[in-house]
Amino acid sequence: MSSTTPDLARIVSDIADEMRERPDRGEVATYIPELARVGADAFGITVIDADGTVVAAGDSETPFSIQSISKVFTLTLALGMVGDRLWRRVGREPSGSPFNSIVQLERERGIPRNPFINAGAIAVTDVILSGHQPREALGEILRFMQFLAQDPTITIDEAVAASELRTGFRNTALANYMKSFGVLDNPVDFTLGVYFHHCAISMSCRQLAMAGRFLAHSGRNPSTGHSVVSPERARRINAVMLTCGHYDGSGEFAYRVGLPGKSGVGGGILAVAPGKASIAVWSPGLDASGNSHLGRIALEALAKRLGWSIFGA
Amino acid sequence: MSSTTPDLARIVSDIADEMRERPDRGEVATYIPELARVGADAFGITVIDADGTVVAAGDSETPFSIQSISKVFTLTLALGMVGDRLWRRVGREPSGSPFNSIVQLERERGIPRNPFINAGAIAVTDVILSGHQPREALGEILRFMQFLAQDPTITIDEAVAASELRTGFRNTALANYMKSFGVLDNPVDFTLGVYFHHCAISMSCRQLAMAGRFLAHSGRNPSTGHSVVSPERARRINAVMLTCGHYDGSGEFAYRVGLPGKSGVGGGILAVAPGKASIAVWSPGLDASGNSHLGRIALEALAKRLGWSIFGA
Amino acid sequence: MSSTTPDLARIVSDIADEMRERPDRGEVATYIPELARVGADAFGITVIDADGTVVAAGDSETPFSIQSISKVFTLTLALGMVGDRLWRRVGREPSGSPFNSIVQLERERGIPRNPFINAGAIAVTDVILSGHQPREALGEILRFMQFLAQDPTITIDEAVAASELRTGFRNTALANYMKSFGVLDNPVDFTLGVYFHHCAISMSCRQLAMAGRFLAHSGRNPSTGHSVVSPERARRINAVMLTCGHYDGSGEFAYRVGLPGKSGVGGGILAVAPGKASIAVWSPGLDASGNSHLGRIALEALAKRLGWSIFGA
Amino acid sequence: MSSTTPDLARIVSDIADEMRERPDRGEVATYIPELARVGADAFGITVIDADGTVVAAGDSETPFSIQSISKVFTLTLALGMVGDRLWRRVGREPSGSPFNSIVQLERERGIPRNPFINAGAIAVTDVILSGHQPREALGEILRFMQFLAQDPTITIDEAVAASELRTGFRNTALANYMKSFGVLDNPVDFTLGVYFHHCAISMSCRQLAMAGRFLAHSGRNPSTGHSVVSPERARRINAVMLTCGHYDGSGEFAYRVGLPGKSGVGGGILAVAPGKASIAVWSPGLDASGNSHLGRIALEALAKRLGWSIFGA
Repeated sequence: MSSTTPDLARIVSDIADEMRERPDRGEVATYIPELARVGADAFGITVIDADGTVVAAGDSETPFSIQSISKVFTLTLALGMVGDRLWRRVGREPSGSPFNSIVQLERERGIPRNPFINAGAIAVTDVILSGHQPREALGEILRFMQFLAQDPTITIDEAVAASELRTGFRNTALANYMKSFGVLDNPVDFTLGVYFHHCAISMSCRQLAMAGRFLAHSGRNPSTGHSVVSPERARRINAVMLTCGHYDGSGEFAYRVGLPGKSGVGGGILAVAPGKASIAVWSPGLDASGNSHLGRIALEALAKRLGWSIFGA
Repeated sequence: MSSTTPDLARIVSDIADEMRERPDRGEVATYIPELARVGADAFGITVIDADGTVVAAGDSETPFSIQSISKVFTLTLALGMVGDRLWRRVGREPSGSPFNSIVQLERERGIPRNPFINAGAIAVTDVILSGHQPREALGEILRFMQFLAQDPTITIDEAVAASELRTGFRNTALANYMKSFGVLDNPVDFTLGVYFHHCAISMSCRQLAMAGRFLAHSGRNPSTGHSVVSPERARRINAVMLTCGHYDGSGEFAYRVGLPGKSGVGGGILAVAPGKASIAVWSPGLDASGNSHLGRIALEALAKRLGWSIFGA
Repeated sequence: MSSTTPDLARIVSDIADEMRERPDRGEVATYIPELARVGADAFGITVIDADGTVVAAGDSETPFSIQSISKVFTLTLALGMVGDRLWRRVGREPSGSPFNSIVQLERERGIPRNPFINAGAIAVTDVILSGHQPREALGEILRFMQFLAQDPTITIDEAVAASELRTGFRNTALANYMKSFGVLDNPVDFTLGVYFHHCAISMSCRQLAMAGRFLAHSGRNPSTGHSVVSPERARRINAVMLTCGHYDGSGEFAYRVGLPGKSGVGGGILAVAPGKASIAVWSPGLDASGNSHLGRIALEALAKRLGWSIFGA
Repeated sequence: MSSTTPDLARIVSDIADEMRERPDRGEVATYIPELARVGADAFGITVIDADGTVVAAGDSETPFSIQSISKVFTLTLALGMVGDRLWRRVGREPSGSPFNSIVQLERERGIPRNPFINAGAIAVTDVILSGHQPREALGEILRFMQFLAQDPTITIDEAVAASELRTGFRNTALANYMKSFGVLDNPVDFTLGVYFHHCAISMSCRQLAMAGRFLAHSGRNPSTGHSVVSPERARRINAVMLTCGHYDGSGEFAYRVGLPGKSGVGGGILAVAPGKASIAVWSPGLDASGNSHLGRIALEALAKRLGWSIFGA
């Protein structure tokens, strides 16, 4: 067992206590009506170190809507399917724009800047979908999540997916816009259906931290020994997370936390300390860039106290 | 002495040989006439490890115009002067735009996105200048470089500075534009004069790698023991380098190289492997984003062979 | 009878002859497959003067897809329904952008710049639709056209409408984008259905020139005596046509032709010489801004020879 | 004498009375300190009909800074010098942007959208300057104004010009930006010096209305018989005024007033009723688009009561 575990347990517990007492909690997203029902009080955190030790605190077992965090896993899947050809459909540069901006698409003829802004994730979903029925593609994504998290109980929250289908006009605009440039191969409704559904996957912090372990350990889950991707691909996915994982708050997250991470509008963040740990936090209140307010603060505290920044001791 | 040194020497030498033979060398910048005189053949590299061992190959002793690499050091100086108040004048998000874009400035009322695009570096220079004569501010910047590199012979190439003063219309536009929003305190000519001169500092790969050591080692030069910045500030400067150090090729550099780095249009790149080494490469041919073509390829090879990526083994 | 009629007949006939001989004919639009079938050879022109004298030449009786010219009539209808409240949904400034740009919508929170760019026309259609079934709204638009043209045979080309429904991804993006800002009241599919169908109305130059007479004569058809709109409203619609009627070729059209006009991607242009005549031209080849190439040249020649510019003798 | 004169005199006098009593007066421009000293109370109007009858009311003899209205006359001069070659340097489309936007310049590689936004007028000034000393070019512009207004007493307000030279950072940015694309031939300081000075010409409503007569009468002053430009060129300048004369309030001005016009930030507007009259109004308070608030309202009333709209009776 890692000698840092006792410390880690205390630090995680302290942070959860500190978060519980903070008056500033951000704003719960309301644009998806189902998400708006979650209270801003929730806070959960799970850290799984290299040995597989699970350290958790707060609401770490409560499932929440992972939303854009799913994009890390669809990116992984799509790279597995088509390799570097994926980059013909989507770039890997930070966008300098909000998550749902359409301006960049006009300037760059329908090619999204990176796979983590909405347009880019829709393009990635379209790649996964190609040649399949939406139901099959979605099944594949869900089974991949269950496999990574070693947990077959993970499901999709159909109410959230239905809510997005009814109200996701901006995403529908993005998808049709890309379609007009020929960037999407499948019928827009098919691609969006799969996209809205994989964003509606529900997971707890524990499940999410488990699913992210391969990114912390050179593409391989060190407990099961399962190799998910090559070490180089794991590094590269981490790099895209660092530069693009928090929309136009990505620079801020790198500056303050110093770890690759991906946020979701449901309030979750998956972060990776390469070689050390996979971390998931959840708190539904968001900051102005759409990232979990307390989630970011908790990760900043964790990385600082443990010296886990990738940018130096 | 580090056990990796013999390997390091061979790897660096191999890379220099490989670079020498590549037919693709990028395009030498012509927009500053003085820079256009440098041949595309040059290639130099210096790596200084944690022990202070200097490993070099190629034209590692030839001085070149560091150009935008100076922005790392002016950022360090300005943070030392005004601390986090600096961030009222400049953001720290990737811009999603070319290095000399003015569009973002209009949208964000004169506040540059980050300290490494031209507008941001001009704003940082203005902070350093405040309350001083241009000559004094410039002297302070130059002495800082000499101190960091432990080399009092470092100088400014006046011909390059004069060349920029005559032809830097785009930078003059950026500065006046920020001035119109009240973002600059000093006369535009003063600020630009200092800016063009610190970009015209000439350094060799060896001098540059030496100057960057504090960033690789928690803010402190491990050989001299001089503390330049706090460990936290060193990490944060590295984070800004990673997300913003290569203009709109920053995502690509993070993806391929996996190290914080800052490029200059003179063909230099300073890169930092936290805890391990400070690295400088130089090759004047540039890629489409304005970053050294062979410099990036050499750093990618180096990081890969040594397993130095910050994103995992 | 107007004393200018003999001259007018000769001038119109000359112009048709000249157009027939020109080698430069522009490019027929291909983005709607049905439109791409029309040959670039066609040229028709009809001028109806204040007395109701019809002067025509070329293919003036051939029906063509009026496309965006329908926007003049939907604007007229919508102003009749909701008056100046329409301007809460759409501006009346030239856009400085192509007809299908989405950038401006992001900057101005879903409010289109004017009723003649696609987004603006979709917003106007949504106003006409409100409280009705698509079929009813479309019926009302078609009957309005038949009434204005005094011709109950005018119909909608269902093949063109179907073609747009299948391929109109950009317009679907625009509509969903506006919907995301709450600018559209009706289901996106309903609004787009009506929009695509009214753009698919088929009319000949003669029918179109007849339908536009009220704009040339203070809101009233001088032959039937039917008052369609007030004189002030007729002037104002003409003003919007002049500043916005040719997308980002509007300035060019005003500069060269000097008459209010509205073009359609089917190659038609409706132009108005206030107090003097209503004019329709048709030639399917388009210029770079998407306006009829020969149509504009013919109108320039006509306005010049007759001294009909609104900008002076 | 024109039979409309008695009516005209009464209407003009009524309008001046009505304007005096309105509580809404807009905001006096403060960005040029010298302009900020003028009181918002002032209102003047002069109408000169085809016979040369001068009808005036209010502060019609008070000189004010004509600012951007000078751009109509520099456009006329530059077209006289280089003809249609001018349009290689500047477009003639409405910009859809504020008067001092730099975004469009980046997108269109330094070519301003039209000669009436600041960037375009600077480009036009650069054409007039070519091959001359700034003093000579400025003398030529001033003599042209004196000739058109038949008044040798017209002068430049040096205090206003000096004020702009000190504070015109945005215009300096625009000029340097165009220079970086090679759109300006002369040293930026020279071009800006001439630009700031011709904007600082002081004229009364009477002088301005006199100077604009050639635009109302086919390029010729009907009283002196002097031909200034061809009828076609007069029409075309009027067309550019209509589509671009009021920045991003040009559509609004066309919609409400229905006459070609050019506003200046000093509160003046020159308007042209082709074949009927040249009109100047002045009231220093501006609306949100930077155009004279009462000036526009007065012109709307005048055009409506006299039926002078170019868009129909």
